Amino acid sequence: MQSQKDKVTLTPIGILRTEFDHKFGTPRQGALAPSSRAWFELSPEWRGKGLFCNLEGFSHVWILSLFHQNKNTRAAGKVHPPRLLGEAVGILASRSPHRPNPIGLTLARIESVNQDTLILSGVDLVDGTPVLDIKPYLPEADRPQDYTVGWPSKITASDADVQLDAGVREQIAELHARGDLVEIERFLELVQQVLRLDPRPLAYRKRINERFAVVIGGLDVHARYNDGVFTVIEVAKLVAPATTTPPR
Amino acid sequence: MQSQKDKVTLTPIGILRTEFDHKFGTPRQGALAPSSRAWFELSPEWRGKGLFCNLEGFSHVWILSLFHQNKNTRAAGKVHPPRLLGEAVGILASRSPHRPNPIGLTLARIESVNQDTLILSGVDLVDGTPVLDIKPYLPEADRPQDYTVGWPSKITASDADVQLDAGVREQIAELHARGDLVEIERFLELVQQVLRLDPRPLAYRKRINERFAVVIGGLDVHARYNDGVFTVIEVAKLVAPATTTPPR
Repeated sequence: MQSQKDKVTLTPIGILRTEFDHKFGTPRQGALAPSSRAWFELSPEWRGKGLFCNLEGFSHVWILSLFHQNKNTRAAGKVHPPRLLGEAVGILASRSPHRPNPIGLTLARIESVNQDTLILSGVDLVDGTPVLDIKPYLPEADRPQDYTVGWPSKITASDADVQLDAGVREQIAELHARGDLVEIERFLELVQQVLRLDPRPLAYRKRINERFAVVIGGLDVHARYNDGVFTVIEVAKLVAPATTTPPR
Repeated sequence: MQSQKDKVTLTPIGILRTEFDHKFGTPRQGALAPSSRAWFELSPEWRGKGLFCNLEGFSHVWILSLFHQNKNTRAAGKVHPPRLLGEAVGILASRSPHRPNPIGLTLARIESVNQDTLILSGVDLVDGTPVLDIKPYLPEADRPQDYTVGWPSKITASDADVQLDAGVREQIAELHARGDLVEIERFLELVQQVLRLDPRPLAYRKRINERFAVVIGGLDVHARYNDGVFTVIEVAKLVAPATTTPPR
């Protein structure tokens, strides 16, 4: 940390590799997409020093990350959470990425620890996200016995169904055979989790039966929505290569 | 946020005022000192924009802060948590302030919200701590259903008693009468919570019956430890004025 007057300069300790290539489609809270996998490796200057020693036995860690895809440098006072369909709330009463300091806080499950590398699940972050800090989840500090929730408690959870069009399973089997998809069942679970959260921007939600696509694990997942059902109509290898490669 | 190559420059959104004037004596996890109070006001450039709008109904917020009292600029790979009596653990398997990026994560209870000001309780931070971000506690994202804890689960909680020497209540009544102490009962609760956590550095713990002092709410609390009991022997106004004034 270097501090100059009121400012502070921080350097990420590594980059998170995830299966979400773009902001669009990335779940807003990782806990809602437990089938997602992420891979973290410390940057070279922090390797070999035992930073993850004794992490064994912990099931969860906090990831403090940078919302690096934010383009606007000036945060507004209020934001419009997609789930509130137009209503505004104070930015510090929300978990929106468009914050005065664009730091994200994500609870992730530890799948495995190996020296300077972590495999995580339930991560809601875009591939390539810079990580500032990782901390163990400590119930005595992080888990209040009683708590209340404000405005999100007014929102009823989406209970959309997810179906696969005829032919999609064959496309998936082919992608698997060609090595473009490793874990079929986990991929299908993740597609369900992502679509059930309705990844469409607000402006798209009125367009019934219009095709849209989300990128998951380097694959284009095309779907449409009608009357409470998301139907996956095609899964294909990305036409334009992603700027970053998801972990295999 | 300004990012230059890998670095990021952040500006605190305000300063936290607490009752803990020094690192020594400041509880390591705020949840263990629920009687502590803290006061947060947004810095001038963020006021009047509704940043805390709709925070009503939330019981808890996360405080992302800077460990500004860290003097060493190079973090080691491992630390020695006081509770482990000498054993080392990886820095990212701990909540130690001596981290690669010295960002603190504290869950605090909201006592009240008033425009650009928050009154909080259960805060483990030193007075004057710069705050980078405040986020609402969202159980769906922040509260795993099942979890396990690593090395801290081996530690048995301190169950020390706290007693007051004859005369201490009179000193406290006098400080109250002179306006140096506002809430007597809450102060006594907080003294108990802080001492029960054993604020003494490791090197001091073998010195039985030796007087030590912690500063709480601008007052010097002198105590000694013997055989499972902390005895408060004197409460007095700070001889040297603190560099910052605690909230009243």
